[in-house]
Amino acid sequence: MSKIAARVFKGARDFLPEQMLHRERIMEVMRNVFKKYGFAPLETPAIEYLDVLTGKYGEDADRLIYRLDYKIGSKDAAALHYDLTVPFSRVVAMNPDLPLPFKRYQMQPVWRADRPQPHQGRFREFYQCDIDAVGSTSMIIDAEMVAITAEILSSLGFETFLIKINNRKILNGITQYAGLPSEMTQEVCRSIDKLDKMPWEEVEKELQQKEIQAEAIEKLGALMQQQLTLDNLSSALSGIETALEGIAETRQIFTYLEALGVDKKHYCFDLSLARGLDYYTGPIFETKLTDQPHMGSLTGGGRYDGLIGMLSGREMPAVGTTLGLDRIFTAMQQLKMLPELKTSTQVLIANFSEDTLEHVINLAGFLRQQGIATEIYPDAAKLKKQFAYADKKGIPFMAVLGETEISEGTVALKDLRTGEQKVVQRKDISSLVKPQ
Amino acid sequence: MSKIAARVFKGARDFLPEQMLHRERIMEVMRNVFKKYGFAPLETPAIEYLDVLTGKYGEDADRLIYRLDYKIGSKDAAALHYDLTVPFSRVVAMNPDLPLPFKRYQMQPVWRADRPQPHQGRFREFYQCDIDAVGSTSMIIDAEMVAITAEILSSLGFETFLIKINNRKILNGITQYAGLPSEMTQEVCRSIDKLDKMPWEEVEKELQQKEIQAEAIEKLGALMQQQLTLDNLSSALSGIETALEGIAETRQIFTYLEALGVDKKHYCFDLSLARGLDYYTGPIFETKLTDQPHMGSLTGGGRYDGLIGMLSGREMPAVGTTLGLDRIFTAMQQLKMLPELKTSTQVLIANFSEDTLEHVINLAGFLRQQGIATEIYPDAAKLKKQFAYADKKGIPFMAVLGETEISEGTVALKDLRTGEQKVVQRKDISSLVKPQ
Repeated sequence: MSKIAARVFKGARDFLPEQMLHRERIMEVMRNVFKKYGFAPLETPAIEYLDVLTGKYGEDADRLIYRLDYKIGSKDAAALHYDLTVPFSRVVAMNPDLPLPFKRYQMQPVWRADRPQPHQGRFREFYQCDIDAVGSTSMIIDAEMVAITAEILSSLGFETFLIKINNRKILNGITQYAGLPSEMTQEVCRSIDKLDKMPWEEVEKELQQKEIQAEAIEKLGALMQQQLTLDNLSSALSGIETALEGIAETRQIFTYLEALGVDKKHYCFDLSLARGLDYYTGPIFETKLTDQPHMGSLTGGGRYDGLIGMLSGREMPAVGTTLGLDRIFTAMQQLKMLPELKTSTQVLIANFSEDTLEHVINLAGFLRQQGIATEIYPDAAKLKKQFAYADKKGIPFMAVLGETEISEGTVALKDLRTGEQKVVQRKDISSLVKPQ
Repeated sequence: MSKIAARVFKGARDFLPEQMLHRERIMEVMRNVFKKYGFAPLETPAIEYLDVLTGKYGEDADRLIYRLDYKIGSKDAAALHYDLTVPFSRVVAMNPDLPLPFKRYQMQPVWRADRPQPHQGRFREFYQCDIDAVGSTSMIIDAEMVAITAEILSSLGFETFLIKINNRKILNGITQYAGLPSEMTQEVCRSIDKLDKMPWEEVEKELQQKEIQAEAIEKLGALMQQQLTLDNLSSALSGIETALEGIAETRQIFTYLEALGVDKKHYCFDLSLARGLDYYTGPIFETKLTDQPHMGSLTGGGRYDGLIGMLSGREMPAVGTTLGLDRIFTAMQQLKMLPELKTSTQVLIANFSEDTLEHVINLAGFLRQQGIATEIYPDAAKLKKQFAYADKKGIPFMAVLGETEISEGTVALKDLRTGEQKVVQRKDISSLVKPQ
């Protein structure tokens, strides 16, 4: 057996208990909210046939797909999935009997053979938490995506998040309004999308470099530099049908969000939101922390009514969003929203000698039956060492069973956070040791 | 964008909601029990450097490690982890400050580039749910492995499971008793391990083919063909120190299991249990369903005090067990322990028209606030279609809001399982729709 040259694959990470306890809680919060809105879990394999993945993300992304070099019993090349959307589309294509709308959540790692930049939160292996709904064009589902995002972030304790909402149809309309051909929308969007990071003057320069006519840039600038309400925009773009459709959809989403009871301070219309991906066709949304503008977006998504049809050959409207587990976790760490947590153990029972061990073990069994997470220190070590272990792990209570306690059926219980010690009846422990 | 030739990678599986809802519940039961015994979550990346993985499992297994052929920015080859034990050992080696004992659980997929045999439950991508504890030689932890296994299987509803317990030291002692050199223990074990599938006569033949002396085989047969208690065995092997040590450890485990309150019908000593892996050094355990002898074992593990030291260069006693999520799930399916479950949605609200939609959406918001998983049918389709959707997904309740209900602040609620329909006050819905 060869010794391990112990190191973690570059761009990947170990998650020790102090991170995992929080990550598991965040995922549980997500899962509960997803289910409350009628989303059901789906899981697809990490390994897909290579041709299922390639040709969907664009050439640059295709190069970042991790290929496997081992093909026992199969002539087809295989690779690790690059995101969860294409595997989801494959599942939809392969299961024509799924009840529609099909609303699923999926929380799994994805892989990108990229140059990792851990300080900018860019990894080769990271989690995506996706919800998508296929089979309906109703704006109710788009509104629910926003409501789910708001409910999850509120439940996690975020206060300053803002979900920006826009619509690709409005952006198409603006391109038309500026007198540009519709093929230019992507180019224009990519520049406009930078307005949250740079002033109009710089975006203007970028548009000039793209050789867009001065007149068109001026028209864009006049629109983008105002804080336009939907009403103003509606007048400005009157006659441009696609823009008016997008405005009507946005109004519907706002009406539905109000009916759903989502707090208005957490969402707004933002004409400069464009989002990078080419495949969006309608509403788009993205979440930022207003007091942390340097942080990347925590969530992002939109409607992509054409994608699944193109992939699977079966026309299917769809809308989805990704919640960035790593981003959310990092934001919570940086904002000190996560208490230090190395264990979920509530009580450590001290272990003195073989003589009292059966009583110690019996007490552990009793406490666990009450739902109290309990550890027995496994070796009859010095008490000091056992306290140090509880302390290092942050276990809040230590239970000690001496001869007196055993004969009287009591337990000496010490709260390690306050130093307070009490002798209590077994049955009273569960009311003192509240579940974490 | 290229159309998907939709197919699942051979040896891997999609898990649709009807499987995932159960798999998530099984993992939640496991997680809760693990935590109750003081185990904390750990996650390691799927991708490891190849040399971290190779040379630990033996040559045959090394060939089954999935290698990646993409090495951007790194000269070192990479691969997918083959199990969770070696990555865990790497984490222990890299984190010398972990408080000891370090007790972790880890539930992740693992990969084997094997010829898949789905009907025998052999896949290329499958889940392992592992618990391991390092840093203590105390039999308390070994007993807790058995107790955790029993508690999880009982919680899931299994009744006929039996955890067989043996000890490698006893098996070493038996080899010595038969007059064979200790290097023969592995060979002898591999044959003895088959005694649950074949009679002694066949095992005897196998031992003869291995060219073990007739006298030794006779001595082994005399022992193995009896149903020996620990006391009998102790007399039979008196003077063989390693065997007596193993017997003493087994007695300790039994004493601790009794103190922990584990039902005696769920565990037993079984001299013929040997387990395949070479690295076990002390207690070993394995779970079978007594009324389903053809099914493979649901769990298996043991103590491996030498392995981590060999891998990491840091001596570290360890004991662990794997719970086979796929095996457990398959057993529960075959034994019809899993109710049909396609959704966790409790109420579908019908959608008639744009006019009543705000009330419908508002009701959904209200029900979700009460913790009721609620869907709105997103399109104003025919009521028949909406009922069919609820029915196909197995949603138990349908809520209908007509003009009368809206004006009176009531809801027409139909139980789709019984067909019963009532007009109820909003606030009374949560008592009728009990959470699933």
